[in-house]
Amino acid sequence: MFSKILIANRGEVAVRVIRACKEMGIETVAVYSDADKDALHVEMADESYCIGGPLVNDSYLNINVIITLAQAVGAEAIHPGYGMLSENPEFARKCEENDIALIGPGSEVMEKMGQKEIARQIAVSTGVPVTPGSDILQSNKEAIRWAKEIGYPVILKARAGGGGKGIRVVREESELIPAFEQVKKEAKSSFADDAIFMEKYLENVKHVEVQILADQSGKVIVLGDRDCSVQRKNQKLIEECPAPVLADSTRKKMYKAASDLAKKVGYVTVGTVEFLVKGDSFYFMEMNTRLQVEHSVTEMVCGIDIVEWQIRTAAGINIPFNQEDIAHSKHAIECRICAENSVDFKPSTGKVELLHIPGGVDVRFDSALYQSYEVTPFYDSMLGKLIVCADTRDGAIRKMKSALSEFVLVGIDNNREMHMKFMDNVKFVVGNYDTGICQKVL
Amino acid sequence: MFSKILIANRGEVAVRVIRACKEMGIETVAVYSDADKDALHVEMADESYCIGGPLVNDSYLNINVIITLAQAVGAEAIHPGYGMLSENPEFARKCEENDIALIGPGSEVMEKMGQKEIARQIAVSTGVPVTPGSDILQSNKEAIRWAKEIGYPVILKARAGGGGKGIRVVREESELIPAFEQVKKEAKSSFADDAIFMEKYLENVKHVEVQILADQSGKVIVLGDRDCSVQRKNQKLIEECPAPVLADSTRKKMYKAASDLAKKVGYVTVGTVEFLVKGDSFYFMEMNTRLQVEHSVTEMVCGIDIVEWQIRTAAGINIPFNQEDIAHSKHAIECRICAENSVDFKPSTGKVELLHIPGGVDVRFDSALYQSYEVTPFYDSMLGKLIVCADTRDGAIRKMKSALSEFVLVGIDNNREMHMKFMDNVKFVVGNYDTGICQKVL
Repeated sequence: MFSKILIANRGEVAVRVIRACKEMGIETVAVYSDADKDALHVEMADESYCIGGPLVNDSYLNINVIITLAQAVGAEAIHPGYGMLSENPEFARKCEENDIALIGPGSEVMEKMGQKEIARQIAVSTGVPVTPGSDILQSNKEAIRWAKEIGYPVILKARAGGGGKGIRVVREESELIPAFEQVKKEAKSSFADDAIFMEKYLENVKHVEVQILADQSGKVIVLGDRDCSVQRKNQKLIEECPAPVLADSTRKKMYKAASDLAKKVGYVTVGTVEFLVKGDSFYFMEMNTRLQVEHSVTEMVCGIDIVEWQIRTAAGINIPFNQEDIAHSKHAIECRICAENSVDFKPSTGKVELLHIPGGVDVRFDSALYQSYEVTPFYDSMLGKLIVCADTRDGAIRKMKSALSEFVLVGIDNNREMHMKFMDNVKFVVGNYDTGICQKVL
Repeated sequence: MFSKILIANRGEVAVRVIRACKEMGIETVAVYSDADKDALHVEMADESYCIGGPLVNDSYLNINVIITLAQAVGAEAIHPGYGMLSENPEFARKCEENDIALIGPGSEVMEKMGQKEIARQIAVSTGVPVTPGSDILQSNKEAIRWAKEIGYPVILKARAGGGGKGIRVVREESELIPAFEQVKKEAKSSFADDAIFMEKYLENVKHVEVQILADQSGKVIVLGDRDCSVQRKNQKLIEECPAPVLADSTRKKMYKAASDLAKKVGYVTVGTVEFLVKGDSFYFMEMNTRLQVEHSVTEMVCGIDIVEWQIRTAAGINIPFNQEDIAHSKHAIECRICAENSVDFKPSTGKVELLHIPGGVDVRFDSALYQSYEVTPFYDSMLGKLIVCADTRDGAIRKMKSALSEFVLVGIDNNREMHMKFMDNVKFVVGNYDTGICQKVL
């Protein structure tokens, strides 16, 4: 097992990883930008180092500085969190070249699955259904041709995309060229890779993903599925585990597809296979070769610490439990608490004037917030994740309402009230909602 | 199921019960004293009523006011919490006479098991081992005679005692009469019942208790056991589930004893059977006919919300799960965070200037604290319970250390550092400690 891990991230996920390391008896090294000198992860880690300015390119995305630091402090492994460098194959390769274990599936698998068009080919060759889609688009003319072939609406996607960035729906030809240019630009600035492709955009679909855990012996365990259909601008807002209103037969097939795919590419550690679901049909969307923000709902239901097992499998430890040991009778919901104003949902900043965190049985708030902390404009607007788990979905919704009503955050505009709306919304409560729910509720 | 419950308590337990009710969709009515007008439970309940002055006799122990209020607001049931009126058979009787369900086993069982000498007789008749002990002591002369017969050290106990009150160890005859008078006095003021008796005081014993849940059909489920040996002045400080270093055969016998006892008296709802354990021998100490402070460690391990099932079984709902469904592979630890100074452990008061609550997987802080809340001198010094759960006991200890190091409470002297000492103490870490551990660590 690793004795020291550097966490190449900030915010909630850095705190999450540090907590896991502490429980496992692993020393932690935090990195931070000038803007984050007062951040919680800096305070919590055993060692903390400033690696540059507030802009991510100057600090959290600075591959060379991070690798040099890991070597200097004697960290055998780096945890990339989510976002930032977590799906950057160049970073993964450099870690490998420098004999640092990057906690993830390895650069080769990351590269394959990270290039969405290659991932699609692998899915097809594994017998996993995919939506109709293009190759990498070399020009906007190619985009127009493909869109005609596939039929509108289509969705443009950055090959290296994730987290709701580098993605756009196009409903008619007149929108296509501007969208093409914008996604390309966004892809370049967010992922340093402007390759984009196109898929048929399915409407009234559910976004359901399958969480897998795999070890170096080739064992793959499915920890459960999550419905992430509550999205605004392709950014997830609410996730639940398991997905409601999903036929058992469909679920079974999706689990097999996810597991087959992981085995096919020799996947190790934790990963998520994302599907679009329409009725009893499902289509492979992409595989995320990293920890997901919403991993916590699965943890609450299956009783397994996903970050700890991510670290263990990365260190070469085999999974001692089996598929039939995985608990799945409970229901968990997560609401992402974001710094945004309630009028136009634009990110907000400010100082935490009053923070009151809900508690109780199976109520969890994963966050890097604290009283008097100041939210800067430099990073993602997610402030924390409020997660609840109960015996039934109805119970979980009531518990979430109760937790949201206990939650107090003064000083930063945030989306607590919006989540309340969802918990009271008939469509959400019934459970048979799709990715269109946001337009209907908000 | 009840549609409205009055909570006849304050602080952490009132908050705990309100949360359970919210998840179950039950309306809540809080009561409070003048000193508690800004308390969290008052804010959280659907309705809140001031019932008198700060002294408990003027408010939280005022049976008539509480029952009248329950009738006036249409509450079908009262949850008594722990402490306060939770084991007062007169209160239970009055509730019954007024057709209000007191969430508990009923006045008859409460009275029997609450009178420790009767409880002992029942234990003996059920084949459960007890320590040598006296009848109710009518005079200090009787006390002297019994002590001679039993042999020093002995322990004097209020028949109605609990929560570390009305209890005293006597090591030699010269201490007996003053101790006798003091326990009698304390019993009278704390429980309005000055009947006391004597038992052999066993040293180097573990305090292990068994949590049971029973329904009106006579089904009794053992939810697990807890080691509560870390005590100062007979007040529990740290509890864990399951008890470490307990032979499986002993555990099995204790579960059977607890279950037999519950069946013998027709017990319904939740209850705890407390034992002293020495090696492979165990002795019945008492049964608590109420929710215990430390119920939460059991919840973390068995995955069952004990308060919700307490309410359901009180409402006549039968338990749908069976003994073999109870999970027991994890390990949970609870540290009671108390307002006390670190020099002489005297209760402290003050205003919460800064509160930071630890989070993460299976980390729970049950409390009624909030930023700017003011702790008054009128009530119990317990501010909250920090509870963690992990796959192994070692993992739980590391997680508790991590959680304690995250926990920040400025403005009120408290025992966080003391708990840190325990988590680092070799005797505690090894697990083979007994009720003498406090003298060794502090």
